[in-house]
Amino acid sequence: MTGGTFWLTGILDVAGIAVFAMSGALMAARARQTMVTFAFFAAVTGMGGGTVRDLLIGAPVFWMHEPIWIATCLSVAVLVWFLPNRMWPVRAVEWCDAVGLAAYSVYGAAKALQYGIPPLPAAVMGVVTACLGGIFRDVLAGVPSIVIRPEIYVTAAAAAAAGFVVLVWAGLPMIVAALIAAPAGFALRALAIARGLALPAYRR
Amino acid sequence: MTGGTFWLTGILDVAGIAVFAMSGALMAARARQTMVTFAFFAAVTGMGGGTVRDLLIGAPVFWMHEPIWIATCLSVAVLVWFLPNRMWPVRAVEWCDAVGLAAYSVYGAAKALQYGIPPLPAAVMGVVTACLGGIFRDVLAGVPSIVIRPEIYVTAAAAAAAGFVVLVWAGLPMIVAALIAAPAGFALRALAIARGLALPAYRR
Amino acid sequence: MTGGTFWLTGILDVAGIAVFAMSGALMAARARQTMVTFAFFAAVTGMGGGTVRDLLIGAPVFWMHEPIWIATCLSVAVLVWFLPNRMWPVRAVEWCDAVGLAAYSVYGAAKALQYGIPPLPAAVMGVVTACLGGIFRDVLAGVPSIVIRPEIYVTAAAAAAAGFVVLVWAGLPMIVAALIAAPAGFALRALAIARGLALPAYRR
Repeated sequence: MTGGTFWLTGILDVAGIAVFAMSGALMAARARQTMVTFAFFAAVTGMGGGTVRDLLIGAPVFWMHEPIWIATCLSVAVLVWFLPNRMWPVRAVEWCDAVGLAAYSVYGAAKALQYGIPPLPAAVMGVVTACLGGIFRDVLAGVPSIVIRPEIYVTAAAAAAAGFVVLVWAGLPMIVAALIAAPAGFALRALAIARGLALPAYRR
Repeated sequence: MTGGTFWLTGILDVAGIAVFAMSGALMAARARQTMVTFAFFAAVTGMGGGTVRDLLIGAPVFWMHEPIWIATCLSVAVLVWFLPNRMWPVRAVEWCDAVGLAAYSVYGAAKALQYGIPPLPAAVMGVVTACLGGIFRDVLAGVPSIVIRPEIYVTAAAAAAAGFVVLVWAGLPMIVAALIAAPAGFALRALAIARGLALPAYRR
Repeated sequence: MTGGTFWLTGILDVAGIAVFAMSGALMAARARQTMVTFAFFAAVTGMGGGTVRDLLIGAPVFWMHEPIWIATCLSVAVLVWFLPNRMWPVRAVEWCDAVGLAAYSVYGAAKALQYGIPPLPAAVMGVVTACLGGIFRDVLAGVPSIVIRPEIYVTAAAAAAAGFVVLVWAGLPMIVAALIAAPAGFALRALAIARGLALPAYRR
């Protein structure tokens, strides 16, 4: 792996964590919670997916050795607490979350591949990285989780992660594969936000 | 440990995962979910317990290095999605689940012993392996979890795992202990299904 | 680290686990559950926080190699089952839990520091150790979790853990830092129990 790839994955990682932390803090704001709950929700949503990924692939848990990640989540929680609510229009947050979802799916799959995980589980690690923080947030807050809503969300993460893994497997450099797969996953999620694209439900 | 034991635990493992994945996918079907949720529920229910066991005993997480396990869960999800619903009578699923429960309890305890875990925590690992996937499935779906229903379920897993550990500790070969303990756990669960056997609730 | 510190952390650990196991078993009693659920809730509440801490810091999971911890949780479950309910006045349990919370926060942070975790994540590990078992218990039982109630609880754990880490970072021996930080965290929680001290909720 080249330095360029590391740099890319570093940027994708920051993007994912800050945006997801924001969605966690905003959930706490909507539920009229306290500062401590803001911090807890920001941390769980921002770092939960990556934590489970690292445990599963056998990597040291990323935020245990670099204080920057927790510091980012706590800063986002403080920001959301102090800035006026109308600063965070629902739509804007959804669009940021879509960027984070696409970036984080690719980043999770890339990290798994770097740890020698085969393509299929590596793609699943992309989905875990991108979606598990939000699922934890929803279970803790007691609201229906993203995984049981028909809207395209987990699917967009799966498309980005699987696309990335297939392109790498086909021989493309990781950075090129990422620059194709992440925008594709984002486009899929964008269709869901803009046009209400959803998967069909089971009707048998 | 002999090759025979490895072979046995391999069979028990496949049985457990496929059956549990099916119960996860059927939960998604009952909730009128999408294909992606089917896959997610099949994977979490089929592999959740074994994943936690591997993390706890310090083993590499089993499905990270062998794509066959995720592939099994995804295939089961697709099967349940496409086959007509009446193919899956509630009773038949319950009986399959009982086989999986007994097999997986013994398998989980055997793997823990092989990793040098002492008998008491090893027996608990059997229960974790057999029951945690179902608990995750219930928490995600928002239904009351098996662990808070009086019906004999966790108890049957505990009986199979503890029986296995005691027999091995008494000097029996693992394969013999498994062939005694798994049917015993299955019988206990069968009594719960057929006769409604349940534990007494707290009344003080 | 000296033998005295090990001894101290051993005592703090036992205190934390037994008290949290009791709060888990009492939750099962209130929900009129069975003996198996008592054991499950006692184990998850007593050992859940420490388990996640060990996984995150890369330590062997503590109860996998010493049967004493599961044995403690199971014994507490049996005790709560057989002793009459009026033996466990709500207030007494809350006070015991406050001791466990303070002790366990400091213990978790101390163990993380011993594993070379930097101060900020080490303080978070104290909060995880003290609070996650209770959060698991609440999610399993389907009641609103401590993390979404305004009452000072997670805050007291954070104060004890952060205070401990700062004092150690300032050069104090671990045992002295613990004997200052744990009582301070306990005092904060005591104010919440006795006077209803709570954090302000988000109102923007």
